[in-house]
Amino acid sequence: MPVPASNLYPAFNIVRLSHVEYTVSDLADSRKFYADMLGLQVTDEDDKAVYLRAMEERGHHCLILRQAEGGEPCVKYLAYKVYAEDDLDKAEAWFKGKGQPTAWVERPYQGRTLASTDCFGAPIEFYHKMERLAPIHQKYGLYHGVKPLRIDHFNLFSPDVDASVAFYNEMGFRVTEYTEDEESGRLWAAWMHRKGGIHDVAFTNGTGPRLHHTAFWVPTPLNIIDLCDLMSTTGYLSNIERGPGRHGISNAFFLYVLDTDGHRIEIYCSDYQTVDPDLEPIKWDLKDPQRQTLWGAPAPRSWFERGSVFMGLETQEPELKAQPIIAP
Amino acid sequence: MPVPASNLYPAFNIVRLSHVEYTVSDLADSRKFYADMLGLQVTDEDDKAVYLRAMEERGHHCLILRQAEGGEPCVKYLAYKVYAEDDLDKAEAWFKGKGQPTAWVERPYQGRTLASTDCFGAPIEFYHKMERLAPIHQKYGLYHGVKPLRIDHFNLFSPDVDASVAFYNEMGFRVTEYTEDEESGRLWAAWMHRKGGIHDVAFTNGTGPRLHHTAFWVPTPLNIIDLCDLMSTTGYLSNIERGPGRHGISNAFFLYVLDTDGHRIEIYCSDYQTVDPDLEPIKWDLKDPQRQTLWGAPAPRSWFERGSVFMGLETQEPELKAQPIIAP
Amino acid sequence: MPVPASNLYPAFNIVRLSHVEYTVSDLADSRKFYADMLGLQVTDEDDKAVYLRAMEERGHHCLILRQAEGGEPCVKYLAYKVYAEDDLDKAEAWFKGKGQPTAWVERPYQGRTLASTDCFGAPIEFYHKMERLAPIHQKYGLYHGVKPLRIDHFNLFSPDVDASVAFYNEMGFRVTEYTEDEESGRLWAAWMHRKGGIHDVAFTNGTGPRLHHTAFWVPTPLNIIDLCDLMSTTGYLSNIERGPGRHGISNAFFLYVLDTDGHRIEIYCSDYQTVDPDLEPIKWDLKDPQRQTLWGAPAPRSWFERGSVFMGLETQEPELKAQPIIAP
Amino acid sequence: MPVPASNLYPAFNIVRLSHVEYTVSDLADSRKFYADMLGLQVTDEDDKAVYLRAMEERGHHCLILRQAEGGEPCVKYLAYKVYAEDDLDKAEAWFKGKGQPTAWVERPYQGRTLASTDCFGAPIEFYHKMERLAPIHQKYGLYHGVKPLRIDHFNLFSPDVDASVAFYNEMGFRVTEYTEDEESGRLWAAWMHRKGGIHDVAFTNGTGPRLHHTAFWVPTPLNIIDLCDLMSTTGYLSNIERGPGRHGISNAFFLYVLDTDGHRIEIYCSDYQTVDPDLEPIKWDLKDPQRQTLWGAPAPRSWFERGSVFMGLETQEPELKAQPIIAP
Repeated sequence: MPVPASNLYPAFNIVRLSHVEYTVSDLADSRKFYADMLGLQVTDEDDKAVYLRAMEERGHHCLILRQAEGGEPCVKYLAYKVYAEDDLDKAEAWFKGKGQPTAWVERPYQGRTLASTDCFGAPIEFYHKMERLAPIHQKYGLYHGVKPLRIDHFNLFSPDVDASVAFYNEMGFRVTEYTEDEESGRLWAAWMHRKGGIHDVAFTNGTGPRLHHTAFWVPTPLNIIDLCDLMSTTGYLSNIERGPGRHGISNAFFLYVLDTDGHRIEIYCSDYQTVDPDLEPIKWDLKDPQRQTLWGAPAPRSWFERGSVFMGLETQEPELKAQPIIAP
Repeated sequence: MPVPASNLYPAFNIVRLSHVEYTVSDLADSRKFYADMLGLQVTDEDDKAVYLRAMEERGHHCLILRQAEGGEPCVKYLAYKVYAEDDLDKAEAWFKGKGQPTAWVERPYQGRTLASTDCFGAPIEFYHKMERLAPIHQKYGLYHGVKPLRIDHFNLFSPDVDASVAFYNEMGFRVTEYTEDEESGRLWAAWMHRKGGIHDVAFTNGTGPRLHHTAFWVPTPLNIIDLCDLMSTTGYLSNIERGPGRHGISNAFFLYVLDTDGHRIEIYCSDYQTVDPDLEPIKWDLKDPQRQTLWGAPAPRSWFERGSVFMGLETQEPELKAQPIIAP
Repeated sequence: MPVPASNLYPAFNIVRLSHVEYTVSDLADSRKFYADMLGLQVTDEDDKAVYLRAMEERGHHCLILRQAEGGEPCVKYLAYKVYAEDDLDKAEAWFKGKGQPTAWVERPYQGRTLASTDCFGAPIEFYHKMERLAPIHQKYGLYHGVKPLRIDHFNLFSPDVDASVAFYNEMGFRVTEYTEDEESGRLWAAWMHRKGGIHDVAFTNGTGPRLHHTAFWVPTPLNIIDLCDLMSTTGYLSNIERGPGRHGISNAFFLYVLDTDGHRIEIYCSDYQTVDPDLEPIKWDLKDPQRQTLWGAPAPRSWFERGSVFMGLETQEPELKAQPIIAP
Repeated sequence: MPVPASNLYPAFNIVRLSHVEYTVSDLADSRKFYADMLGLQVTDEDDKAVYLRAMEERGHHCLILRQAEGGEPCVKYLAYKVYAEDDLDKAEAWFKGKGQPTAWVERPYQGRTLASTDCFGAPIEFYHKMERLAPIHQKYGLYHGVKPLRIDHFNLFSPDVDASVAFYNEMGFRVTEYTEDEESGRLWAAWMHRKGGIHDVAFTNGTGPRLHHTAFWVPTPLNIIDLCDLMSTTGYLSNIERGPGRHGISNAFFLYVLDTDGHRIEIYCSDYQTVDPDLEPIKWDLKDPQRQTLWGAPAPRSWFERGSVFMGLETQEPELKAQPIIAP
């Protein structure tokens, strides 16, 4: 049984994923993509960085775009919000206990922020307090683009999904759906949550750690169709990578787009509530193409291969080599 | 400041609202309303009771209809799911400590079930284990009616909303939105959650305790429009009481319908995620008609007055008499 | 039988309704309402007038707003497009034959334009050629507001619906749905089309001729819900007069809004195709409230009473006094 | 200029496409596909044939399924409705004048019916009167599947699109959009209408005449997404051939499915109104992949190659061999 039982009493309490910081090759282009086209709201900006939030969020940012100073655009870190201030100290102790590096870092608009890494070195940060902004979810005059409501999840390539799942399970993430390699009995991919949806973070077997995508939640499939219409007629046609379609896993209606640097964004809706601690993970057969695509065109090769690297982090090849039997 | 600060470490851990048991005057008529028309799935039934679940639920039931044996159709109890088995014992201790009656009751398809009452005597039950059923959320051939996905919340009339909010706050429910009476500084209404949405339970000033409505969550406003089309052409026109429209409070797109006994059901979508423990409650002015109706026709008088009584329970008149200044 | 048989070979061939010219008390306010908020596209403007078209139209305008030079804002004329250039001459002959006034008038962006009046003096104009503009229906970056696709119909109060229907029937308009007064056997209201939808023009018994509303067609009910959200949070809440809801007659999902001068605009979708020349008109009982409102709140009194007058035209009281038995 | 000017005064007046008769290898399977799954309504049936209509149609049938008596399932004929009874006689004269065969045939539920063939021998039929059925468009209890509202168009492979367009143009069909081969200046494909939409019939260069697909109109893209969910989970996954996506040409949101014999059905919505007789045809570049797919996955090879043959009719290879430069 490769999926660990839910860890109901983790050492510290993570509420949800919070935000991601990307470096980008042209800040103005990226701002145009995320703010003008996708419809995220700029909450602060200067010539080095742009902070954005989605329409129902009251935290200051769910996405930071930072002008790269040379080198490949990458991910600086993934961030999570914890339940209470002292969960940060509990987290520090836990990471130290695991032999992971820890540091207290300064982040604008955030209170105390703990930086560490996961089991493969991916930089992850934790905070409790972030500057709160006035609600805008009923300022309908501001809605445009895909009308993104909130950040939904991160999806990472992992060189060893069993190891990633074990690590995040200890942090209290619970598996909702997964696939395993029938021969080796090892996990191929897993979706794990804290906040009561299908996932805050997911892992797929592959060269990693790399970030496969960050997802934003929208209310209905029509938002996604509107976005396709908009992107295909405003110069962003080639940024549409996959979809729309429905995933078997998660049941989500999805679209994958690439930003101006190739960072992948999923637009996501219609998954289901997972707050029950005894919710049974759903196992999918790696040979069932409907796990990825309940219906819709097969994913293109790029979707299986491309990912954003973490700043300064070497990636590892996965041991598990068998490719999923799904022809692009 | 009438809204108590969030109680982040309650004595026991409630996950979410779970189910309600209604008595009904004609079980066949009620079954037709909920299963054939609304689209809930029957999971068990005999000549005394019908058990139903919504499409994404894996617990055995979110609604029990029971043939009344005379008397006015009413509510037998409201039920909540707790996080772990020992939360039931912690709950028992807490209720005893509050001087509330407690009993361990037998409920089909459930594990140990604790029965108690809230501060006004409304019967509430708690369990951890319920029989789990196979997922049907991707059996799209079963979807019909309004395509209800899950039970979302209860809404009660309370004779003293401050008292109700204080009681449920101790149980860990957090206020997301509220209105208060400016003169007396007392709460007029409050929305409180455990599961990360606007509410698992809400209270409005009025003769109570009575159940104003039970709500089911649907994915998009079009489901609600489809239901209006269906009800208005299949003999249920007069069962549509209010809506569709959008609430200011909760931002939900809503429809209120009355079942064949007058139990009120809300069909509900597009509220927002509230998992942040430091989410600031939104205060609405009692004189702002957009708090109830961001847009749409005013609510009819029946919507302000009608409610389902709890079995055998006397109601109390509220002290706070001022009516909200919203003409039907 | 009050509904005349379809006149399959009228004296001249009208293709569809085309446009309306309103006078307005503040051109800037009106422009803001129609262009910035509703989402019509400005095709020309100066300090006296603004020309607009909807997203799928290639004719230069479907709406002209003209700064009033004092007096009540009103309607200057309703305009129709004819099939071929010589239909204008046939029309002139037909109107002369009916004893109606005729004139050839200059209208910017139009070819030869015939002005006349209907049987109650309402000014109507006919043209064949209008300046054609490049398609914008796939310029999705321009879509906003309610995303109006095209002008759909005019609705008028008539002091004698039988007379209006007879007159427009001679012009080739065919009745699709109607209500009649059971006692007198006279028509209460009728919907008449040329272009293959429910109507290009409709008449309802009342003080007239006055224009009850002009309608724009949108693709889905969600556009209407989006508009309600937008209007209710950008200062236009009180401009929402009725709806959303579904009409029994026409089956349309509707919303009625009032512009900044009280000219009524219907946002309209989901009627049906009526190109069959032998399509039987559907008769509705005047006592059936579902004819107006298949479901939804009753119409407010203003909706029954308010209308835009035609410039310089006296109105007449209807002979048929019985009010429809539908309480607001 | 390969597109003929609109023929405003054709020899006879066709109102719209009406219906198609398919032969099928297993009548029960086909009935299940069209009635139970897609949601068309059965209006008559015996052990040889099933008649169906869509939800807003009042004519008796838009589709006839007939048990094949051996041989490949095929198309018996395509049928059109004419404006008046004497248009049938005018049509007979016109076809005779063109040297086409003509016959008066008996068709259940229809009045006088003229059978002839188009310029490549495809069997086409014309009638004026068909038995009219009571409206069901407001019987919302009957809606299911994709909720098809009406038949929308036929799409045929033609061995010479210029010839087909010239022939149908003489019958009054007007081109709305088209592509041409830049080198030869010949038409590659054309969309032609009578009823005021993008097309009643379209022709694409290819081995023909064969029927590429018959299309049904649905109100919103969500109907199509619902159908994908339904088909992919009820055993019809492999019947989904292409889509959903949006065509550049026609602007339609589309899905292509194959029935149980491989007859192709398009589910189609959101094209635009084309009643203006001077509507300029839109020309698309054969090298522009957005003409076929404004966005969405490329069409699979089968979509370019597969078609339903006409009963007993030999097909011809097209002269124009250049394939459109769109890689599946």
